[in-house]
Amino acid sequence: MKSICILSGGMDSTAAMAIAIENKREVVALHFDYRQRTERKEREAFGKVAQFYGAKPYIIDLPFFAAIGKSALTDYSIAVPSELSAKDKVPVTYVPFRNGIFLSIAAAIAEKEGANEIVLGAVEEDSSGYPDCRESFLEAQETAIKLGCATGEIKISAPLVHLTKEQIVREALRLNAPLRLTWSCYQNEDRPCGVCESCRLRQKGFNLAGAKDPIL
Amino acid sequence: MKSICILSGGMDSTAAMAIAIENKREVVALHFDYRQRTERKEREAFGKVAQFYGAKPYIIDLPFFAAIGKSALTDYSIAVPSELSAKDKVPVTYVPFRNGIFLSIAAAIAEKEGANEIVLGAVEEDSSGYPDCRESFLEAQETAIKLGCATGEIKISAPLVHLTKEQIVREALRLNAPLRLTWSCYQNEDRPCGVCESCRLRQKGFNLAGAKDPIL
Repeated sequence: MKSICILSGGMDSTAAMAIAIENKREVVALHFDYRQRTERKEREAFGKVAQFYGAKPYIIDLPFFAAIGKSALTDYSIAVPSELSAKDKVPVTYVPFRNGIFLSIAAAIAEKEGANEIVLGAVEEDSSGYPDCRESFLEAQETAIKLGCATGEIKISAPLVHLTKEQIVREALRLNAPLRLTWSCYQNEDRPCGVCESCRLRQKGFNLAGAKDPIL
Repeated sequence: MKSICILSGGMDSTAAMAIAIENKREVVALHFDYRQRTERKEREAFGKVAQFYGAKPYIIDLPFFAAIGKSALTDYSIAVPSELSAKDKVPVTYVPFRNGIFLSIAAAIAEKEGANEIVLGAVEEDSSGYPDCRESFLEAQETAIKLGCATGEIKISAPLVHLTKEQIVREALRLNAPLRLTWSCYQNEDRPCGVCESCRLRQKGFNLAGAKDPIL
């Protein structure tokens, strides 16, 4: 059976795709260009990971996110913070309803491709605190997709949603996921800045797993 | 309070907007260019209706629908049928998960605009049979938006969902909605074809309401 894997090119989405591959799914790789700061680098990583797994690639252009703004990732006048955000606050890197939009478009592509699953690398446990990465949201969005699509059941799988970053690194290493090809930094496209929340969470995962990040 | 009104420029979305205006909402008009056949004409109608109501206009460009295709509205090699589709079948004019995608983007814009409502002219009762126009879907999508967005509660209002086309025409006339500015035909941009399902449903409404369609 076929899965639409939403693949930014980062560690988490690559690990989620590795799990889909382990589950013997035929995979389609779906990338969104929403004019995020590091899109050039992310797109490069996406292409390499998709090729590594032999996945049919889709790149969907979403220029409107820049007009919406309200996020340090799409409004370049808002600085990317160099520390983790407070646990009870939505960080300025939150992009309004990004995963809702991504999953809706993925559902349309699943209808086209005859896929019955959308795979997303969302992480709730050890995350940046984005509301659209919570399992409760993902379940509600899955229900909406089931009711609103013409073609049967399309499931949302978020295999990392309850994993810590340490567990994600361990899982990716166990599956020989090509972490050397991935990119997670929110800020830079040459060397990971090491201080944005995405870099910090990635480093935490590698440190706790006792492994070396191959991109450093 | 502010509402994001999804406005194609057709009769139904204009009637829904008229209801929001009657409810004393501040309205933002949101239009999607998804490369549908009659976008030039729809965009013209959108602009005129938005101006009529003094609504701030947003036009969101969604070029990717053409790549997804699977619909007579976005794949021009599929003919627009000249009759109503069977009651139990999804018509070829169904665009994969269109309202899911539209509502997700509207939610992001609601977050930007500080709006607490999205208004949609979806019709379930007397409709083309699109799954993403059903109230059950709209309720599920509202739940997903509530759980996935950062800013409080965003409600989905579909004031026409249980109205017949006759009732929609009566309601639009009662509210003096500018139906002369609207466009519903799926096929043509000069004169309504009169035979596509959208023209037929519109005509049915005017006929049963005993009124004359001002665009004919």
